Amino acid sequence: MTTSFARRMSRVQPSAIRELLQLGDNPNVISFGGGYPDATLFPYEELCAAAQTALVEDGAASLQYTSSSGTPQLRAQIAARMTRQGTPCRADDVLILHGGQQGLDLVAKLFLNPGDVVITENPTFLGALIAFNPCEPNYVAIGMDDDGMDMNQLEQALIATPNAKLIYTVPDFHNPTGVTMSLARRHELIGLANRFNLIILEDTPYREIRFAGESLPTLKSLDTEDRVIYLGTFSKILAPALRIGWTVASPAITHQLGLLKLAADTQCSTLNMKIISLFLEQNDIEAHIGQLRDAYRRKCDVMLRTMAESFPDTVTWTKPNGGLFTWLTFPVGFDAADFMRNQLLPHASVAYVPGAPFFAVNPVPNHARVNYSSQSDSRIVQGITAMGALLKNPR
Amino acid sequence: MTTSFARRMSRVQPSAIRELLQLGDNPNVISFGGGYPDATLFPYEELCAAAQTALVEDGAASLQYTSSSGTPQLRAQIAARMTRQGTPCRADDVLILHGGQQGLDLVAKLFLNPGDVVITENPTFLGALIAFNPCEPNYVAIGMDDDGMDMNQLEQALIATPNAKLIYTVPDFHNPTGVTMSLARRHELIGLANRFNLIILEDTPYREIRFAGESLPTLKSLDTEDRVIYLGTFSKILAPALRIGWTVASPAITHQLGLLKLAADTQCSTLNMKIISLFLEQNDIEAHIGQLRDAYRRKCDVMLRTMAESFPDTVTWTKPNGGLFTWLTFPVGFDAADFMRNQLLPHASVAYVPGAPFFAVNPVPNHARVNYSSQSDSRIVQGITAMGALLKNPR
Repeated sequence: MTTSFARRMSRVQPSAIRELLQLGDNPNVISFGGGYPDATLFPYEELCAAAQTALVEDGAASLQYTSSSGTPQLRAQIAARMTRQGTPCRADDVLILHGGQQGLDLVAKLFLNPGDVVITENPTFLGALIAFNPCEPNYVAIGMDDDGMDMNQLEQALIATPNAKLIYTVPDFHNPTGVTMSLARRHELIGLANRFNLIILEDTPYREIRFAGESLPTLKSLDTEDRVIYLGTFSKILAPALRIGWTVASPAITHQLGLLKLAADTQCSTLNMKIISLFLEQNDIEAHIGQLRDAYRRKCDVMLRTMAESFPDTVTWTKPNGGLFTWLTFPVGFDAADFMRNQLLPHASVAYVPGAPFFAVNPVPNHARVNYSSQSDSRIVQGITAMGALLKNPR
Repeated sequence: MTTSFARRMSRVQPSAIRELLQLGDNPNVISFGGGYPDATLFPYEELCAAAQTALVEDGAASLQYTSSSGTPQLRAQIAARMTRQGTPCRADDVLILHGGQQGLDLVAKLFLNPGDVVITENPTFLGALIAFNPCEPNYVAIGMDDDGMDMNQLEQALIATPNAKLIYTVPDFHNPTGVTMSLARRHELIGLANRFNLIILEDTPYREIRFAGESLPTLKSLDTEDRVIYLGTFSKILAPALRIGWTVASPAITHQLGLLKLAADTQCSTLNMKIISLFLEQNDIEAHIGQLRDAYRRKCDVMLRTMAESFPDTVTWTKPNGGLFTWLTFPVGFDAADFMRNQLLPHASVAYVPGAPFFAVNPVPNHARVNYSSQSDSRIVQGITAMGALLKNPR
């Protein structure tokens, strides 16, 4: 009875991923594995005040069912903020989702039939792969450099792949590599999507965590033919536990995603939407994000400096201008999953995410994704130093 | 690009359903349409106290990511309560979901390939149909009487339908009819599922809202071959806006549903799971549910009495022992959707759900689902009286 399940889930091992993410809950492990934001930076008092207001002053409206597309107030607030930030849209263009991950699931349901091709960066976010897999697509993975996805390689791939439907990209502080797509590449990507009649899914969880350089326009703001579905979330800029994300797309796509949202889980938590609306009303979220940027800049510096001091010369890493991750490249022949299992976890109680599951096709074993947002400065130094020692002298 | 979408969504019109449900938000309409619980009965102070505790005393743990399967505490609380209520299970058998609706989506993803047959009651919950439809199943709908699904008809259907995979049932206070499956039928259903190698999805949102008669064993408690997936929710017994439901199933199915949950939306709201756990710790939920039963018994009585006083003799309705709905049967030839659109809404500002979308195959036009939980007693009398007047003398 589970044949179809096995086939659908076979490309990645979500079991292994789930076990790995659970390391984040183990206080004895210094985990650089998950995409956890720093819990000491959550705006507790402000969110608590918002929850109080929601429940005491507006109780029925916070605890009852509401519109499946999200509360009109939150949709309007998100649209106004995105418009201010250079991506003009209306409240009706915003669909509230249960975290960004739900957008991956619904977009796959809307566009993908078995055998359709999804274009991804190589590597790409493994959570997107496990969301897409139940629709049984095939993948074509496009190489990256310091400016993001290689557009010449993409063009060749699109010429060779007539059944490509969707381009999935994390243009800002890419997961797992931390790389940002250049402005020129963004324009090229829009042009190729127009030419080859493709949908672009622009996943932006880390976009606002920029701590160096200038912000670049969203793909959605460069979209000339309503082909871009923008996917945003409050998980990294406010608190992941509220599970509130959103899409901005054309009216036709928003309508259809809305019907799939209704079918998938009726609506998001009215209370959590209210809490975010009240937080946005009563506080300056831009100031809060400014604090996150400062903290994550410092943490990234601490981590990269410690790597430079501790790691052998044979290991390299990306230098992100924002986001939560750096991407390690070990020497060819090195197995990052094996090293974590047999060296790093047992001898240093340190974890990362081995890189192989981030490759949609042809897993490459000598990489790891390392998160610098979730651990304290001292634990970053402690964990990276211990890792460096084991890399130099495995037991 | 949306051909597959149109095909997948074609069987019901979720657009029309969404518009209808939005009538529930219009204070000028007396809507008997949605499945809204009575907002005046929400335990505001207790939920507010729980939210305060969650955010103030346990902030980081309430706002950060947690296990994709749900917090261990809530899983244990649900397992203990279900075991006390006669459905023995362990915390590991409980998977926390984003409302009961998500269970419909994930079970469909796990078991259904295009063309597989889902057995439903006739009529059935339209929300289940829109959740199943993206997997493109076919449906076989089994007639009901006052004891629930007709088991002779089911047996004949299963003999004739070798590709049946799943039986979907709402055994307690069925949506939309309000009927409860008898104990004898429950045993027969388990026997047929064993004989024909089928999964049973037991959807129980109204089970605890029993205000007459004795509670019957769950199908899960009668399950002899790990074929039943029990689907529960806090939406009707606590507050729908928290969006917390759960499944209880075999370890193998729970594992696979858990991976699909991770892929679909990462996890439920940590805050909302904490709020429910704290509510269950600090309060007597059974006493709270007792108050709901008393209130809904009274409301059901008010509605059925007003119908008896106001409706023409040609209209009949079910007499539920619990739940939120009664099911109207109008004379053959009567179009309930047309009557609502052209008579009830414009001339009385009253709404129900026309019955046709509840039929998985061969929609029957002369029914309506009427909810008695969401409106006040006086608005029930006002709305039903006005509806009776229009039924007797259409404008």
